[in-house]
Amino acid sequence: MHQRPSGHVSLLTDFGAADPYVGVVKGALLQAHPKAVDVDLGHAVPPQDIAGAFWWRAAIGWFPPGTVHVGIVDPGVGTARGWVAVAAHECYWLAPDNGLVTHVLASAPSADVRSLDIEHLGVRPASRTFHGRDVLAKVAAWLAAGRYGFSALGPRLATPVLLPPLLAGPRRVVHVDHYGNLVTNVPAAALAGCAAVAVGGRRAVVVGTYGEAPAGSLVALVGSTELVEVAVVGGSAAGLLGAGAGAAVELLPA
Amino acid sequence: MHQRPSGHVSLLTDFGAADPYVGVVKGALLQAHPKAVDVDLGHAVPPQDIAGAFWWRAAIGWFPPGTVHVGIVDPGVGTARGWVAVAAHECYWLAPDNGLVTHVLASAPSADVRSLDIEHLGVRPASRTFHGRDVLAKVAAWLAAGRYGFSALGPRLATPVLLPPLLAGPRRVVHVDHYGNLVTNVPAAALAGCAAVAVGGRRAVVVGTYGEAPAGSLVALVGSTELVEVAVVGGSAAGLLGAGAGAAVELLPA
Amino acid sequence: MHQRPSGHVSLLTDFGAADPYVGVVKGALLQAHPKAVDVDLGHAVPPQDIAGAFWWRAAIGWFPPGTVHVGIVDPGVGTARGWVAVAAHECYWLAPDNGLVTHVLASAPSADVRSLDIEHLGVRPASRTFHGRDVLAKVAAWLAAGRYGFSALGPRLATPVLLPPLLAGPRRVVHVDHYGNLVTNVPAAALAGCAAVAVGGRRAVVVGTYGEAPAGSLVALVGSTELVEVAVVGGSAAGLLGAGAGAAVELLPA
Repeated sequence: MHQRPSGHVSLLTDFGAADPYVGVVKGALLQAHPKAVDVDLGHAVPPQDIAGAFWWRAAIGWFPPGTVHVGIVDPGVGTARGWVAVAAHECYWLAPDNGLVTHVLASAPSADVRSLDIEHLGVRPASRTFHGRDVLAKVAAWLAAGRYGFSALGPRLATPVLLPPLLAGPRRVVHVDHYGNLVTNVPAAALAGCAAVAVGGRRAVVVGTYGEAPAGSLVALVGSTELVEVAVVGGSAAGLLGAGAGAAVELLPA
Repeated sequence: MHQRPSGHVSLLTDFGAADPYVGVVKGALLQAHPKAVDVDLGHAVPPQDIAGAFWWRAAIGWFPPGTVHVGIVDPGVGTARGWVAVAAHECYWLAPDNGLVTHVLASAPSADVRSLDIEHLGVRPASRTFHGRDVLAKVAAWLAAGRYGFSALGPRLATPVLLPPLLAGPRRVVHVDHYGNLVTNVPAAALAGCAAVAVGGRRAVVVGTYGEAPAGSLVALVGSTELVEVAVVGGSAAGLLGAGAGAAVELLPA
Repeated sequence: MHQRPSGHVSLLTDFGAADPYVGVVKGALLQAHPKAVDVDLGHAVPPQDIAGAFWWRAAIGWFPPGTVHVGIVDPGVGTARGWVAVAAHECYWLAPDNGLVTHVLASAPSADVRSLDIEHLGVRPASRTFHGRDVLAKVAAWLAAGRYGFSALGPRLATPVLLPPLLAGPRRVVHVDHYGNLVTNVPAAALAGCAAVAVGGRRAVVVGTYGEAPAGSLVALVGSTELVEVAVVGGSAAGLLGAGAGAAVELLPA
């Protein structure tokens, strides 16, 4: 039994702000479900970068149950690439089948994963270059409106495309945020018994929150999605260290 | 008989994101119609650039019938410039009378075009510099709420200010999008029988969609609003060619 | 007796657009009040800059009565810094107690000012770094939904943290907007009897609105929030003068 849709639809894209693309997806969504409530999860994923899957981690557990999350980062638009629909974390997640759902699935072993059967759903794309508008907006609207139940979207998909797990591989920076904080793939639990974290040859002392150390201090702390991040109090760690995604991270024992 | 308003109001402005201007227009809209549903069509039109009229082409046909589209690019704010209201494409379009409605009218020969009579409507602007907030937000709210029918907004306007038609004049780039795609004024139909398109001395081979050619290829294809665009697969055509709006475009026969 | 909540919630933050932070705050808001209507007042306040308090001036009087305005610029997140809630201008204003409410209070001598008692309200933050999501979204939702009246949010706060008054101190530029207009702290009334304003050694002639002078002219005028601003017609005053926040402003008599 799946969660009852709440009518909320979140949008995660790599569309940026320079064009009407996001607005037109919302128009198409509202055309198919005039009472849908859209929420921008964000549109600053770097162009065609599936690593934007990282953003969806932050949404897990923080939206109304029954929210439909739509992800549009789609370098394969118009080709034979498939579609994936996931029911997990009491919400729905729709995207091209290219790895965007990776981190949503990582923490949802019993997720229901489907392949969108857009032909059966009666979706005929008006273009070959804008399937966020032509396909996903419609399907999200129908799901949010209760016109189709999740199980009606298509057959089960045993092997969705997946990126490497976020927590696997070397400890490293995986995202630089707006403040210049370096978000790592180190889970909060790994910080137990550590006094500091090293990035780019610099030592960041472990604190509970930014304001616990004087301005300018390089600190390490547990961020809002249970990952360790490295920050400069009142400043930018990315700026100070010249480090970005991929930089090695080391845990230093107490 | 005009379309029944749907309650949706889209906003297209040159306000950018550095100020509270967009938010305040939405506040004024909701103040006059608390149940209005606003949609950002976009706010990155270059400051005071009426060429932002181009963005409205992308909205035609992709919003709920009865949507009120509001355009605020208004270098003449506070002067004697007029206002235009258009009923076309099952939607409404409100703007200063400076050319913003050009492309909406281009494909709507039977549009109903009015001049807003703001005095008669009882609108008294609180400023001479922010009529998006003081005038358009209110009128859009009243139209969306059904407080005034379209015909009550003002008298017919025989000669709204118009820009040169998009499809007229030399074949050229008219917009560079977020991905660096070069959107041209060449309609899709003109591509029939062409094998390639030339921009900046480079040959872009015609494809059906981006993913049909290897990464790095320079391609030409029909974009989502039926205009030809030139792109680099997985990259930026604007970056590769150093070309922008105004660059000449040539069709190369097969 | 306080204003009945309207269900609208505006958001002012320094979160920028590079992360899902704004979207997640909206998710948390809708989780606690699914019918809340959120409005972005803006997210481009410079990181951790309390001077973003300036943005709230622009919202006064321009939102539906009963709107809950949420301000999240919070360099002290997770420390012992308090919370402030204000009922003023027929709306509500929630923020960390760090000065963000300064200009809202400046024009509301009879405002009701409270300290949020989040323990009593039953809010247990899930993190020490993201209280916009963990605290303010929830409290705003409950206030907007009518679950708690304003008086139930906490005890009266006699001495909220305040910035220096905007209109005090030397005449100066306080904000540079998206168009390069230099917004000053000079109130409209001070312009009476002045023929011009000087900034950076240049003379800006007083006009009623931008379009009253030829393109390229340096002009001074009353902006949309009753402050004097210096602008270049069809251009950028910040660019022309190389001036920014803090630059001295002088009034020149007629």
